[in-house]
Amino acid sequence: MHVNAYAAPAAGKPLAPTVIERRDVGPNDVLIEIQYAGICHSDIHTVNGDWGPQPFPVVPGHEIVGIVTEVGSGVTKHQVGDRVGVGCMVNSCGECANCRNGDEQYCLAGMVPTYAGTDRDGTTTQGGYSTHVVVDADYVLSVPDGLDAAAAAPLLCAGITTYAPLRRWGAGPGTKVAIVGLGGLGHMAVKIAHALGAEVTVLSQSLKKQEDGLRLGADHYYATSDPDTFQQLAGRFDLIVNTVSARIDLDAYLGLLAVDGTLVNVGAPADPLAVNVFSLIGARRSFAGSMIGGIALTQEMLDFCAEHDISAEVEVISADQVNEAYERVLASDVRYRFVIDTGTLA
Amino acid sequence: MHVNAYAAPAAGKPLAPTVIERRDVGPNDVLIEIQYAGICHSDIHTVNGDWGPQPFPVVPGHEIVGIVTEVGSGVTKHQVGDRVGVGCMVNSCGECANCRNGDEQYCLAGMVPTYAGTDRDGTTTQGGYSTHVVVDADYVLSVPDGLDAAAAAPLLCAGITTYAPLRRWGAGPGTKVAIVGLGGLGHMAVKIAHALGAEVTVLSQSLKKQEDGLRLGADHYYATSDPDTFQQLAGRFDLIVNTVSARIDLDAYLGLLAVDGTLVNVGAPADPLAVNVFSLIGARRSFAGSMIGGIALTQEMLDFCAEHDISAEVEVISADQVNEAYERVLASDVRYRFVIDTGTLA
Repeated sequence: MHVNAYAAPAAGKPLAPTVIERRDVGPNDVLIEIQYAGICHSDIHTVNGDWGPQPFPVVPGHEIVGIVTEVGSGVTKHQVGDRVGVGCMVNSCGECANCRNGDEQYCLAGMVPTYAGTDRDGTTTQGGYSTHVVVDADYVLSVPDGLDAAAAAPLLCAGITTYAPLRRWGAGPGTKVAIVGLGGLGHMAVKIAHALGAEVTVLSQSLKKQEDGLRLGADHYYATSDPDTFQQLAGRFDLIVNTVSARIDLDAYLGLLAVDGTLVNVGAPADPLAVNVFSLIGARRSFAGSMIGGIALTQEMLDFCAEHDISAEVEVISADQVNEAYERVLASDVRYRFVIDTGTLA
Repeated sequence: MHVNAYAAPAAGKPLAPTVIERRDVGPNDVLIEIQYAGICHSDIHTVNGDWGPQPFPVVPGHEIVGIVTEVGSGVTKHQVGDRVGVGCMVNSCGECANCRNGDEQYCLAGMVPTYAGTDRDGTTTQGGYSTHVVVDADYVLSVPDGLDAAAAAPLLCAGITTYAPLRRWGAGPGTKVAIVGLGGLGHMAVKIAHALGAEVTVLSQSLKKQEDGLRLGADHYYATSDPDTFQQLAGRFDLIVNTVSARIDLDAYLGLLAVDGTLVNVGAPADPLAVNVFSLIGARRSFAGSMIGGIALTQEMLDFCAEHDISAEVEVISADQVNEAYERVLASDVRYRFVIDTGTLA
């Protein structure tokens, strides 16, 4: 099956229309007609070659929502006509300890990313900037009716990436949670932490988006460019979710944690960070990392978002606006996620 | 009351006999005739000035076991004749959130260290290398009958320092725990982790102490000087307790943790450590720190040790051997803790 797509032909080159092949629908596969695909910052890192060589041409996109148009003979979980989603992974070994624990993203044999990855059959995966995709049914999520399709797409990466650490480290009533950065990930983290019942503080470089932050569910908003912030909030938080991949002064942020508090990074700077171990020992603090989430947890997140009427703030674009959107993402000029209407590729 | 003691007169100078004053026994105080005082590596750091200026002369010693010889009018917790212990702190505010939670070591007003600290009455605290000490009853522990007095002394610092993180991060049946370093702290960590039911691995620079490690309760023993160790044990542990204060290759050790695993430092190098955040994100790992433990947890630890017949491996010395013992501690030439028989000071 040949389908329309938008691909980066080489590292750093603009994306352009192309035609790619999708595999035949196997017994455990689902064919999805894609409606929307979110633009994640990691799409840009990948096609720019920031993360090393890639199997170009690369069709990015791992925030996919669409409709099932065909299912394999062995599929019972999804039916033709269902609205479904695909996130950052489309396969894993299913047999290792991590897969058995529902942590497929940490598959010991290596999970298969939705694009620019090598699938278990040896083919290169191609992502959601496309009209259709064929995915193993076990890696396809159900998107609840209550959610808007375009606004739900970013939940598949930005949603689970923030939901997972908020759940893992117990955000909820009585806890004080800070979110560092109010971008694609950060705005989801604020909404989810608020819906979980936590007292939410945004720590952003400036107060530029303060009004937005409060509207999205934050109780407090501070500028990290103001040194007073670190004095005022010392020892305040049970959990800090850092959505910013740039280098930060780790010790300054650790100082904002109460006893037993955790600072968890969901992104990573390319270079190592320096940490003064006294910052941890002085209050039994932890510095942690988290990467997306397992399939069951992703479904839980989608259901939670539907129940709490949460989705991303999106700007829907046509496929031919992708390159322009990339420029605007790099300039932080989006509130808060671009989503491609993949119908414009048909 | 004037009592005999051994003090460092100035930074880096040998300790020498002296006479110090102990305060009168107040309504909530306990007068303890000290029997034994352990020598902790931090005693040496303090008197050498490694941790900044100190209020010399300094009488070190925060691993104290002795007998109650007088109690204040308001004391009900301890009686004359009781065998008791004093650890790393002798006071705290008692009112802040951390004190109320039993984390007096993280008192927001600052806990009062057993020596070289400023007590809440403004006086300078002096430690256990002495015949007697007067301590607020709330910071005095009961030492259960089953424990040998000399071997129990190191439990007050080395014991609680390792017991606290092992309990906090869930060492027990079904968990795989690694202990980095087999010194004063490490040998207690091995015994306690084994008694808690964990599968225990020692990670030591060489295999020199392997026989000891296995005798103390370790199931496995690996040399960290052998690069194969890091290959063989990749992703193995739920918890690593690092008792070594020297700089380590953090990313190498983080790579030994399974998903959700924690590496916890109980000591800290003077300089910051570098951490590659991908080491954390790649398996939802944490890097944490822990410092001694609260009073209630310290009592729990002493009771646990008595119940499981655990105490330190000690070499008992007379007070006039302290300087020689310091040299040997610095040369790692002790298995595993020096304890001063403070009766030799009388």
